[in-house]
Amino acid sequence: MRSFARLAVILSLFTIMTFLTSLRFKTQKVIFFGDSITQAGAKPGGYIVKMREALTQKGITDYDLVGAGIGGNKIYDLYLRMEDDVLSQKPDVVFIWVGVNDVWHKASFGTGTDPDKFEKFYTAIINKMLDQHIRVILCTPAVIGERTDFTNQQDGDLNAYSQIIRNLAQKWHCGLVDLREIFHSYELKNNPGNKESGILTVDRVHLTEAGNQLVADKMLEALTSK
Amino acid sequence: MRSFARLAVILSLFTIMTFLTSLRFKTQKVIFFGDSITQAGAKPGGYIVKMREALTQKGITDYDLVGAGIGGNKIYDLYLRMEDDVLSQKPDVVFIWVGVNDVWHKASFGTGTDPDKFEKFYTAIINKMLDQHIRVILCTPAVIGERTDFTNQQDGDLNAYSQIIRNLAQKWHCGLVDLREIFHSYELKNNPGNKESGILTVDRVHLTEAGNQLVADKMLEALTSK
Amino acid sequence: MRSFARLAVILSLFTIMTFLTSLRFKTQKVIFFGDSITQAGAKPGGYIVKMREALTQKGITDYDLVGAGIGGNKIYDLYLRMEDDVLSQKPDVVFIWVGVNDVWHKASFGTGTDPDKFEKFYTAIINKMLDQHIRVILCTPAVIGERTDFTNQQDGDLNAYSQIIRNLAQKWHCGLVDLREIFHSYELKNNPGNKESGILTVDRVHLTEAGNQLVADKMLEALTSK
Amino acid sequence: MRSFARLAVILSLFTIMTFLTSLRFKTQKVIFFGDSITQAGAKPGGYIVKMREALTQKGITDYDLVGAGIGGNKIYDLYLRMEDDVLSQKPDVVFIWVGVNDVWHKASFGTGTDPDKFEKFYTAIINKMLDQHIRVILCTPAVIGERTDFTNQQDGDLNAYSQIIRNLAQKWHCGLVDLREIFHSYELKNNPGNKESGILTVDRVHLTEAGNQLVADKMLEALTSK
Repeated sequence: MRSFARLAVILSLFTIMTFLTSLRFKTQKVIFFGDSITQAGAKPGGYIVKMREALTQKGITDYDLVGAGIGGNKIYDLYLRMEDDVLSQKPDVVFIWVGVNDVWHKASFGTGTDPDKFEKFYTAIINKMLDQHIRVILCTPAVIGERTDFTNQQDGDLNAYSQIIRNLAQKWHCGLVDLREIFHSYELKNNPGNKESGILTVDRVHLTEAGNQLVADKMLEALTSK
Repeated sequence: MRSFARLAVILSLFTIMTFLTSLRFKTQKVIFFGDSITQAGAKPGGYIVKMREALTQKGITDYDLVGAGIGGNKIYDLYLRMEDDVLSQKPDVVFIWVGVNDVWHKASFGTGTDPDKFEKFYTAIINKMLDQHIRVILCTPAVIGERTDFTNQQDGDLNAYSQIIRNLAQKWHCGLVDLREIFHSYELKNNPGNKESGILTVDRVHLTEAGNQLVADKMLEALTSK
Repeated sequence: MRSFARLAVILSLFTIMTFLTSLRFKTQKVIFFGDSITQAGAKPGGYIVKMREALTQKGITDYDLVGAGIGGNKIYDLYLRMEDDVLSQKPDVVFIWVGVNDVWHKASFGTGTDPDKFEKFYTAIINKMLDQHIRVILCTPAVIGERTDFTNQQDGDLNAYSQIIRNLAQKWHCGLVDLREIFHSYELKNNPGNKESGILTVDRVHLTEAGNQLVADKMLEALTSK
Repeated sequence: MRSFARLAVILSLFTIMTFLTSLRFKTQKVIFFGDSITQAGAKPGGYIVKMREALTQKGITDYDLVGAGIGGNKIYDLYLRMEDDVLSQKPDVVFIWVGVNDVWHKASFGTGTDPDKFEKFYTAIINKMLDQHIRVILCTPAVIGERTDFTNQQDGDLNAYSQIIRNLAQKWHCGLVDLREIFHSYELKNNPGNKESGILTVDRVHLTEAGNQLVADKMLEALTSK
């Protein structure tokens, strides 16, 4: 009987350890779904790489970060490739960061996104992901031009589309990284000269080292704060 | 036994007649899926009403014509409401007539449709309908401006998007009413003054009585020529 | 000799009175040079008519107010018609109120005004008027949409082009009625619901009775405060 | 008296020779006034350099060819810099080649040129030059995209603005190099594959070696055919 009891104890411990190990080492796949900013984010110095490095430094091995950004993408493009590039990859978490081209392409190609369509296709993406029990974290578009006094041409639309995204995050209980707000606060402190670029962006849109760092910090916070 | 044979004959005849009757009177539901031109087409004097009248005059009762046009619609809008407004209605035939706003909204709102997205969403609509064994008939966008020398602002895009539609019709074995071509041929004969409007359109886009008649004739031909 | 002295006194008095009378009754021609908002401003209930009524009520007869607004005008249009509609009329004062279409036509026709060209043609107009010793009063474009949180599509550009105008007013020592600022302050107090229109505008751009009153008050202040 | 007669003859001959020499060697200053295509035209391999080389080869030294093209220029820009860059240089001949950006910037910046303004500012430039007795030669915009079936996005506008220029050339008795027509004819023969670029342009707009040669040939013909 004793040996049986011992066996039972050993087996129990083994089971518990296995369980704990699985808990400890269950890696979460995190996909970053977006445009050229995210495409660059997956390259050396980019915000996704910086997040990976920060996790390693902290000894956290729970996350597998995967970039899925394509230059020029609007909400329609995300919708069209969501099956192939996200859902079929079975992610646990998805960051959606889109909106700059939806606004920008109005002036630069005449093919921007109507606000009502932006909301409808964004909603469709969120719902597909929620169907798969993916944790979805929405991000507002940061900037097209870094001037702090709302004199950048697209400021009105960026503010409006960011509000659509904030409302969607609330409605569907998604996470939110409000990069529009975060960048604006940062610029108020760090852009006293009201410059168009050079602080968080190299060209009014794409991120400098400081820009990538700021995004990495805030996304990491959102990812691990759950 | 004789009475049984008689009964059998009667029953057979009855079955055959029922079958023939059903053949004869099986009404086909035809949905016209489009924008403001189709919305107007369902009103008195509109091309759908004219088609209905022509069918009645010919004593053809096989078709139930239903308008499903909404002003300002682009391919994205058709995609979003295709389930509610078309598929759920179980149509036998669908005419798709869209494209003017996809091109026009580039200049008038900055929210026109990129050609690659036009093709992709159009393809998705066609495939959903073919899944339901619907007979699909595509129509090219007619005109934005009636000048015959290709000096209307959107002529380049209208020609290009019409070509996309022609290619889709061929690829997916759909019917085609090439209104772009039909209108151009008509204008070459009937618009010697190279006028912007007043022949087939009242305002460069929406149809005059002659415009509605021309569309009705050509669509009826496509519908009944199968 | 006495009669001569008397004559001298009488003549002197007459001269002085004539001079004073001329001072008193020298009417100043004031031209309002602008777009559809100014065109409407010259109609019953419009801001120019309201200014005229306010002057009459105060018994001030010094000003002859003349509307010179044409719908859809941009800075280019003002430049092209400045000779015929303003300079040849020999005005004493000119209010220039333009900018809404320069910004708006970017999205609605693709033919808005580049900021550098806006500044250059505006400068050319100012200089032509200063050459004729006209008192020039510049006005910033008020609003395209009344939302107070800078989510109106054109807010970025309206802020930027207003800044160009403020800089021009300072550089060339012109008067300034900063309607962009005046409207924004008013909306912050009177538009708690963040509505798009209905407070100072009927349609996001053209003025309500309250809008015309606000503009009339501020322009009158600028005109008479010299 | 004889010696006087001889002197008279010699002097007469000298005068005549001087006159003939002046006729022969009076160099005409020719300015090419335009956009980036003309800016590139003044560089090695460009159409202006090719014209210079062709003249040298033929031993013609009558012309001094001067490039005055600036990238991105529209009719407004030519108007603003015509005094400094053309009139003050006292040219004998001016080629004006503009229009591509007036059309293109509609879609790429929202700041294209309205057709009525294009005509008015173009007219103002022509009249300033005619005032100075300059020989003015107008050129129509060639292409934005080389497809031959009028499916290039801007074909409608390019056709329309070219027609405005043709009408101006006729009205003001200017020369005309109808590059729109010339390129279209060339493409019909040399672009059987209906390609977007690679025949006369490297990028749908700027000229290949063949493009520069074609323009040089046609402009030289116009210049020397007077």
